[in-house]
Amino acid sequence: MNYRYSDRLGKFSSSAVREILKLTQRQSVISFAGGLPAEEHFPVAAVGEAFDRVLAQGNKALQYGLTEGYLPLRESISRRMAKKGIQVTPDDMLLTTGSQQAIDLLTRIYIDPGDVILVERPTYLSAIQVFNSYGARLVSVAGDSDGMDLADLAAKLEQHRPKMVYVIPTFSNPTGQAWSLERRKGVLELCRKYDALILEDDPYGELKFGDESVHYPSIFSLDQHPAGSCVVYTSTFSKTVAPALRTGWVMGDPDLIRNMARAKQAADLHSSSLDQQTLYQLFEHFDLDGHISFVRKEYEARMRQMAELLREKNWPGVTWNEPKGGMFFWLELPEAVDTAELLKTAVQLGVAFVPGATFFAENPKANAMRMNFTHNDTENTITGMNRLSQAMESVLVR
Amino acid sequence: MNYRYSDRLGKFSSSAVREILKLTQRQSVISFAGGLPAEEHFPVAAVGEAFDRVLAQGNKALQYGLTEGYLPLRESISRRMAKKGIQVTPDDMLLTTGSQQAIDLLTRIYIDPGDVILVERPTYLSAIQVFNSYGARLVSVAGDSDGMDLADLAAKLEQHRPKMVYVIPTFSNPTGQAWSLERRKGVLELCRKYDALILEDDPYGELKFGDESVHYPSIFSLDQHPAGSCVVYTSTFSKTVAPALRTGWVMGDPDLIRNMARAKQAADLHSSSLDQQTLYQLFEHFDLDGHISFVRKEYEARMRQMAELLREKNWPGVTWNEPKGGMFFWLELPEAVDTAELLKTAVQLGVAFVPGATFFAENPKANAMRMNFTHNDTENTITGMNRLSQAMESVLVR
Repeated sequence: MNYRYSDRLGKFSSSAVREILKLTQRQSVISFAGGLPAEEHFPVAAVGEAFDRVLAQGNKALQYGLTEGYLPLRESISRRMAKKGIQVTPDDMLLTTGSQQAIDLLTRIYIDPGDVILVERPTYLSAIQVFNSYGARLVSVAGDSDGMDLADLAAKLEQHRPKMVYVIPTFSNPTGQAWSLERRKGVLELCRKYDALILEDDPYGELKFGDESVHYPSIFSLDQHPAGSCVVYTSTFSKTVAPALRTGWVMGDPDLIRNMARAKQAADLHSSSLDQQTLYQLFEHFDLDGHISFVRKEYEARMRQMAELLREKNWPGVTWNEPKGGMFFWLELPEAVDTAELLKTAVQLGVAFVPGATFFAENPKANAMRMNFTHNDTENTITGMNRLSQAMESVLVR
Repeated sequence: MNYRYSDRLGKFSSSAVREILKLTQRQSVISFAGGLPAEEHFPVAAVGEAFDRVLAQGNKALQYGLTEGYLPLRESISRRMAKKGIQVTPDDMLLTTGSQQAIDLLTRIYIDPGDVILVERPTYLSAIQVFNSYGARLVSVAGDSDGMDLADLAAKLEQHRPKMVYVIPTFSNPTGQAWSLERRKGVLELCRKYDALILEDDPYGELKFGDESVHYPSIFSLDQHPAGSCVVYTSTFSKTVAPALRTGWVMGDPDLIRNMARAKQAADLHSSSLDQQTLYQLFEHFDLDGHISFVRKEYEARMRQMAELLREKNWPGVTWNEPKGGMFFWLELPEAVDTAELLKTAVQLGVAFVPGATFFAENPKANAMRMNFTHNDTENTITGMNRLSQAMESVLVR
């Protein structure tokens, strides 16, 4: 028969992440592409014990759950947030299938075709895809290593009157940078003034490197007041515990959360309650903070190794900043280089990364690339970087 | 701040299922409302063993997975389908967060606002909600206990030229009825003629009662040909294994499936791969068919008990058919009765059901109700039916 797809289908343009995930399944390729955590640090034994505890609760553990998510886990997250000075109740929170679903659900209830969303330049590619799929018009705001440019933001709020501003202020995907406190406060103030809802995407906030005393408060935490919160905050256990449990959460004004739950009911009734219950047991019987602290140190070591290799390689005309946390280096190459072309050569040589262009909502920069440093061990990182050096030789002039 | 929700939000009208699930959490209420399987028959020990096997595979089990779902599970499902004479490969299949997500994803890629979807009268309430949320125009087709009325379908295909026809031909939710083979073939033929895609929702097909030799072939199986399949088929493990694993699947033309996967990538990257891997291990090391056969017999016994009680109560003017499988009785009351009002009385007396009106896309029948018979044990069913009798007395005239 003749399939008559929706107009919307054409908006699911790039499927880069999916293709990347496929690429990484090929054993011979060393991939710096996917945002994958290090498998060897997954708390497998603890997850196993937690699961046993779930099943020991009785058969009801396998029954349908609430759309909002397993209440005891929402309570655990609330308590954890309280330790960081963030006051949220389980009613201000929805559990999702990763934070990706939180982005999708908020967009679904908030954005009509033609509505403007402001985004960073560059930003998370799968968020771009979601926004496009709902017919949003994306406008990029300039920024630097301290965060969004406040003057450019003000101008674009004034010009476009956007409904939403999407940001990853802490250890950005793809740049690895963290916003200064001043920029966080400035963006909040401006968005409040213009009635633009901030979607704060924070999958990496727990993965902080360097000086323990330096804090990056979430914009959400700066906006605490009883009603009319200007910020919706989402995070995930994918980077701190394990991705296979596919559990994220989203916090915000209870009215927004209730409406997202209505959309979630239609989308999938609820996420895996087995995973949610397992995470709750981890909260109760496992030193989650200790584990996160351990993972953070391991990732910092991997980041330092890659920084060292980048300094050694010293590829001509290639610039980068040391990430303050998270999972990624962001490299800028000489203007003439197209990293999508470079990727073809690289994959032939057995190494992968993500070309930078996919991270731009408009006017893509073809000469940038994202490199993950968390997934590969020391040896693979060295081999991968050597292969990448070979690929670089084909495009860079010494 | 002032929230500016999308127009779409207003279309997530009823949240009846969610409210029902909340209701069932109150211990004192005996609920015939939710479509809940019997907890005491969940294969808890087998799920525990399967999970142990997953973790024994090593840390990679906790890593990100493919959007399409865990390949070995897709292969297992293919093999199971082949035994029923249905030829599908893993490429014709996508794993979803319950079959609810399959309905959502197909609608997302296929339906533009204003497109017509034909549905049964009555039909699954959360499907109505999904279709409405995408701005579809729903038109109901008449039917009887043998399935959709072919003359009415032909007339409405001709008049509305719908993009999609949504059906639950085997042990319908809410009516529990199964279509005859003739109706299945007739609907397929008519939809093919009018280029209308059939979405066949089959969560209950495995729960067949009575004569073993009677078969209800899926419409999908009647449509087997290499390209341009007219049917998308979805099912779930929620009713045969357990809902908490939140795993469904959808099969169809590989082009359609690929496009649904693109939409799924934006929606949540992938569903819980831990759950998918656990189900794969159940396929490998557990007598799934034996388990399903056992559950089927238990549910048939519960159905017979409720049928017996219904005959005993013999409420004046209340009609029903014995379901041929699945989870539900559908009762029609005298025209003057509004079951939404009856529910209020019933809940005060400690028993719940779902008022029929929510199952209609248009012109709701206020005098019908859905009763689940799978969740409660013998004793609770008796108590619940006695309470319901009391409630009935308030609205029915002897």
